Amino acid sequence: NSKLKIFSLNSNYHLAKEIADEVGVELGKSSVKRFSDGEIQINIEESIRGCDVFVIQSTCQPVNENLMELLIMVDALKRASAKTINIVMPYYGYARQDRKARAREPITAKLVANLLETAGATRVITLDLHAPQIQGFFDILIDHLMGVPILADYFEERGFNTEDLVIVSPDHGGVTRARKLAERLKAPIAIIDKRRPKPNVAEVMNIVGNIDGKIAILIDDIIDTAGTITLAANALVENGAKEVFACCTHPVLSGPAIERIENSNIKELVVTNSIPLGEEKMIGKVKSLSVAPLISEAIIRIYEQQSVSTLFD
Amino acid sequence: NSKLKIFSLNSNYHLAKEIADEVGVELGKSSVKRFSDGEIQINIEESIRGCDVFVIQSTCQPVNENLMELLIMVDALKRASAKTINIVMPYYGYARQDRKARAREPITAKLVANLLETAGATRVITLDLHAPQIQGFFDILIDHLMGVPILADYFEERGFNTEDLVIVSPDHGGVTRARKLAERLKAPIAIIDKRRPKPNVAEVMNIVGNIDGKIAILIDDIIDTAGTITLAANALVENGAKEVFACCTHPVLSGPAIERIENSNIKELVVTNSIPLGEEKMIGKVKSLSVAPLISEAIIRIYEQQSVSTLFD
Ligand SMILES: Nc1ncnc2c1ncn2[C@@H]1O[C@H](COP(=O)(O)O)[C@@H](O)[C@H]1O
Ligand SMILES: Nc1ncnc2c1ncn2[C@@H]1O[C@H](COP(=O)(O)O)[C@@H](O)[C@H]1O
Repeated sequence: NSKLKIFSLNSNYHLAKEIADEVGVELGKSSVKRFSDGEIQINIEESIRGCDVFVIQSTCQPVNENLMELLIMVDALKRASAKTINIVMPYYGYARQDRKARAREPITAKLVANLLETAGATRVITLDLHAPQIQGFFDILIDHLMGVPILADYFEERGFNTEDLVIVSPDHGGVTRARKLAERLKAPIAIIDKRRPKPNVAEVMNIVGNIDGKIAILIDDIIDTAGTITLAANALVENGAKEVFACCTHPVLSGPAIERIENSNIKELVVTNSIPLGEEKMIGKVKSLSVAPLISEAIIRIYEQQSVSTLFD
Repeated sequence: NSKLKIFSLNSNYHLAKEIADEVGVELGKSSVKRFSDGEIQINIEESIRGCDVFVIQSTCQPVNENLMELLIMVDALKRASAKTINIVMPYYGYARQDRKARAREPITAKLVANLLETAGATRVITLDLHAPQIQGFFDILIDHLMGVPILADYFEERGFNTEDLVIVSPDHGGVTRARKLAERLKAPIAIIDKRRPKPNVAEVMNIVGNIDGKIAILIDDIIDTAGTITLAANALVENGAKEVFACCTHPVLSGPAIERIENSNIKELVVTNSIPLGEEKMIGKVKSLSVAPLISEAIIRIYEQQSVSTLFD
């Protein structure tokens, strides 16, 4: 039976440590440093010959550094005779560049898939892709995990009255996600329908569904500059919501995000550690939940499958 | 007949402009920016359908940013129906990671070759690869240009007395390069032979060849932290050289390089603009020569070949 090894790169060290603990192994020994000119220097410091290797790395900021670390690590693992190379990318960067929205644009999400395969990845495990279609960008196996149950468990534990709750999608693209959370919390949904009455006139926030006097929980997959979510929160309060919570799987939180959240009507923002929060983002309003149980369960399941399949190979 | 287009990314804008001028075309219109979270946003702002496209980008510092810009640009060009995508990489980053020097190391120079091909490059034009074997890492065509003639022309114009000159390789790996410069300048060569007499004892610089009373020109492909070259210069002066010049194709000049050069016996350091010198590196001792004539000539030759070949396709 081949051995399971888990390696961390630089994006999510604490999550990787937690995952290794839950799986019951030590983190693999490796060093990931920079040469004087900024080139990445990777060294794997234990034998991984014939092993099922899992590498934990989100391609969050700095996205290009994190992606190159991952590609170079996969190259090193391949040349060191790993049996399988399973990439765990809790956050899949460049996922929003998943189609040509205008002429002569790249489709970087597909490029990233091709680069991972070229480097030698044999499987990808990821969480809440911006578009589930990105699964089809891969010819290798991809496991697509869901963050909604983790967020749902948290809100359930807070013990809100089900009749008081409403789950709100900040745009019509996110209704499926809102429905999933609503089902778990046995609550109705509402949708914010942004309309621009005329070109060059400010958008109007139209709320579809009943939010009056309710505790609204906004849900999105990614919160980046937090423009959409904070405007939505303010619109909800203006239209009679009692309290507004927000949640998402991937807290990108770039640029003005933290300031906007601080100054908004959002009472609490609940996120996961698919992207670690830098110190400047650990404000009182932001609560981060761990995806380690979800991912370690997936790793064990995949490892057991792969071990079984070798019996028949 | 298909059209020739030249695009610049962010590493070498001035060189690209010079090349376009020499070839006699305008630089292609494109924008290469960053989204708020640091992801690269590329837009090609003119049609390139059916064109022979040349993209100028060195993978110098910041190497991972520059490489990702290049890969994403190639993806965009491919999806915009370019006829050929020719990558001009005056400096090929990660070239020093070209073999497994120790167990479980990556071979990043090969990975980069694979990534460029995967993105959709059809040809690569580069200059003085750290190891010429890297040409064999590609299945697509690669043109390998030489910087030595540019350096030789410069020293020739200075009008040194041939009998006074000696060309010095700072290590035995660089002798072939030193011989090429020596042939052009009709001068003899010398080699610095570093030996460690015993483990943990400082290296001894042994000079093979006659340098006494001569003007020594040290040559290397890359000068990075400038440790080797400045120690070599000091050893040459200590052993009787009258003056020491140094030259290289690729001025990486990272970390302590500029300080070391300032404080060394090197009278002048002659480099090319395969890597642009940031303002802090433009010190009086450093002279940068343009590779634009060399590259524009190669572009015209390749373009004419490719146009001809379509007559027979
Ligand atoms: N990192 C990014 N930050 C902001 N916008 C992006 C980013 N990447 C892609 N986009 C844009 O976001 C749009 C896709 O977002 P969506 O409509 O939510 O799927 C596309 O038009 C992209 O140009
Ligand atoms: N960016 C870099 N800076 C310094 N050393 C490097 C770099 N990339 C690779 N190396 C190391 O340099 C050695 C190869 O240099 P060379 O012997 O001159 O071909 C290898 O042992 C690499 O580990």
